[in-house]
Amino acid sequence: MPIITILTDFGSEDYFVGAMKGVMLARNPHAVLVDVTHGIPPQDIRAGAFTLAASYPYFPSGSIHLAVVDPGVGSDRRPLVIEAGGHRFAGPDNGLFSLVLDHDPAARVRHATNSEFFLAARSSTFHGRDIFAPVCAALSLGVAPERFGPIVTDPVRFRFTQVEVAPNGAMLGAILHVDHFGNCVTNLTWDLVREKASGRSVRLQVREVVIERLLTYYGEASERPLEPFLIVGSAGFLEISLCCSSAARQLNIGAGEPVRLTVGNGSPA
Amino acid sequence: MPIITILTDFGSEDYFVGAMKGVMLARNPHAVLVDVTHGIPPQDIRAGAFTLAASYPYFPSGSIHLAVVDPGVGSDRRPLVIEAGGHRFAGPDNGLFSLVLDHDPAARVRHATNSEFFLAARSSTFHGRDIFAPVCAALSLGVAPERFGPIVTDPVRFRFTQVEVAPNGAMLGAILHVDHFGNCVTNLTWDLVREKASGRSVRLQVREVVIERLLTYYGEASERPLEPFLIVGSAGFLEISLCCSSAARQLNIGAGEPVRLTVGNGSPA
Amino acid sequence: MPIITILTDFGSEDYFVGAMKGVMLARNPHAVLVDVTHGIPPQDIRAGAFTLAASYPYFPSGSIHLAVVDPGVGSDRRPLVIEAGGHRFAGPDNGLFSLVLDHDPAARVRHATNSEFFLAARSSTFHGRDIFAPVCAALSLGVAPERFGPIVTDPVRFRFTQVEVAPNGAMLGAILHVDHFGNCVTNLTWDLVREKASGRSVRLQVREVVIERLLTYYGEASERPLEPFLIVGSAGFLEISLCCSSAARQLNIGAGEPVRLTVGNGSPA
Repeated sequence: MPIITILTDFGSEDYFVGAMKGVMLARNPHAVLVDVTHGIPPQDIRAGAFTLAASYPYFPSGSIHLAVVDPGVGSDRRPLVIEAGGHRFAGPDNGLFSLVLDHDPAARVRHATNSEFFLAARSSTFHGRDIFAPVCAALSLGVAPERFGPIVTDPVRFRFTQVEVAPNGAMLGAILHVDHFGNCVTNLTWDLVREKASGRSVRLQVREVVIERLLTYYGEASERPLEPFLIVGSAGFLEISLCCSSAARQLNIGAGEPVRLTVGNGSPA
Repeated sequence: MPIITILTDFGSEDYFVGAMKGVMLARNPHAVLVDVTHGIPPQDIRAGAFTLAASYPYFPSGSIHLAVVDPGVGSDRRPLVIEAGGHRFAGPDNGLFSLVLDHDPAARVRHATNSEFFLAARSSTFHGRDIFAPVCAALSLGVAPERFGPIVTDPVRFRFTQVEVAPNGAMLGAILHVDHFGNCVTNLTWDLVREKASGRSVRLQVREVVIERLLTYYGEASERPLEPFLIVGSAGFLEISLCCSSAARQLNIGAGEPVRLTVGNGSPA
Repeated sequence: MPIITILTDFGSEDYFVGAMKGVMLARNPHAVLVDVTHGIPPQDIRAGAFTLAASYPYFPSGSIHLAVVDPGVGSDRRPLVIEAGGHRFAGPDNGLFSLVLDHDPAARVRHATNSEFFLAARSSTFHGRDIFAPVCAALSLGVAPERFGPIVTDPVRFRFTQVEVAPNGAMLGAILHVDHFGNCVTNLTWDLVREKASGRSVRLQVREVVIERLLTYYGEASERPLEPFLIVGSAGFLEISLCCSSAARQLNIGAGEPVRLTVGNGSPA
């Protein structure tokens, strides 16, 4: 039974998600549909890219991932079908698959041009229903990726996990995502930080706040609950957190906020 | 594997949806349950009717649709079982199925009176769990619609897509629904507008704002991003939209707001 | 096909729920995953306990329930596997299963220590994905509960449905939960109230408000729509409600608010 996961910025209160599910089940009643989220902030491609990258690897190989955050719907932005890391993806060519492509340098990306696999009547405002859902249904029925269209060599990609290193060795990154609990996920992967720090302490500056406390789990913070701390989040990135409260709200920071990390005796200022 | 879709105003944070799913799976473990939405605004029967009508036709023929927006629960409002357009529906008799009935003049509507198909212990506050969920499970197990109860000839129906035409030819409609992105869906279907306009330009007035720009896709608006525009939405109705922002918020309008559409040289004033 | 329900405080906008679903489907592609809710207020163990208790009994016997509201994740709080009432549960030992244990005095509780059933790479911030999801997948594949770890005789339990009785016979309870519609669910079960009242009228005081109107269904309130009333909610508890509006908002009360119930001629003051 083929699995199709669904990730959108459509919200959960409208007919959009229902219509896409209907299209897929009408074409493949055996598809197993799995909601990942419909709560990506409207038109926030970066949040969609992060959330997709943090969830799809846990699904079994061969899964199909429908991802639609698509402010350019109806324009000439290309619809894509991607094979990467043993998974398959369909969605718009706007950077949403940046991290998926980072994960697998051998990924194959195609421009879905074959309208045989689209709905016959297509709107110019809802390609999630009219193009991407039926394409995913076709993939789930075993249609080979090459039948959807030609290879694309220049998909839109953000380099949002790329970190700049200042002359004094400071790593200059940014907040990538704020989660439901108010944890602020930076774009500094723990692998990178650990390597640079090699045992020395780390210091992260965001706005005027300097954070040096690096914890292993949230409960450790309960002794000084009002003080923000660093923690390695479950997606592998360094996060800024608060005990049982929202770090984003208290520090008044959101996605895009710059951060500066120094190690050892380096000064973050 | 029979599909049962679920549409409610129960929200997603309570036990209501879980209990209904449990009741259905306990009676038919092979049912495929599909969440359409639980985010209909509380007690907003019209929003429920619109969302149901915009999603159910995409599901395969034979699907069952559980729809519960039910401020009259426990009173003498009738529970219904409906066959329409190759689909089956269960829910309260309060107008929620108005558009379903508009779609299929041959629809058969029944008053679900046969308590054999209800939960043995029934509350007077949660018929979604106690009546409609087990009725849908029974339908999914192949129980014939006539076994649920007698035909109803006068189900409650709203005529909310009926549009008045003024002596000067202006079409007088209203906002039917505001979606997650702030698009304001009018009750003017594109089929109707196109026929009246027959190639001439259209002009829509809502409050003091007159909108003459009719776009094909959202991205076209990016040159004058602060100006609202008209677009034919994916449910087939004329919508008022803004580029990457909420038209409802900027224009301060919501469901029920009157709109006036004129074509060609007609004045909207 | 084994059913695994999922109840969390993770929200619906992040990758958390998707990652857990992926882990379970990767280990058991035949598992039927059912979202109960991800909208438990962050870290609100009591709300999670109430919602779990009000939904799981409707699922078929043999169902597995993944429940994660886990502010102590990563600390030494124990992960549990529970058999109760013909159902199985996995989640943290922090009181979340209090009502499940109340329902079945013969429940067997185990400390899940056998890391053979966990993800190989485990974070200290996301045991929903790394411990509880794979444990549920193992349960769904038929792994016997005793293989997960030793019996626990002292699981954390709240007694939040315990009601104190004052010398004058008044029952002293509290608001247990506020639902999506603003209904305020007290911890006074109708079975208890009915027995104490034995036919006499009841009076509930919350803050300065005294409520004596006990209704059977919401629509009955439409004659005096601005006046709060009591109703036996669908989870079997006495609730404070308002007609088509939020009682919690109008009375400005939330979970934890004390209530005092008297019967017959007793004075609530």
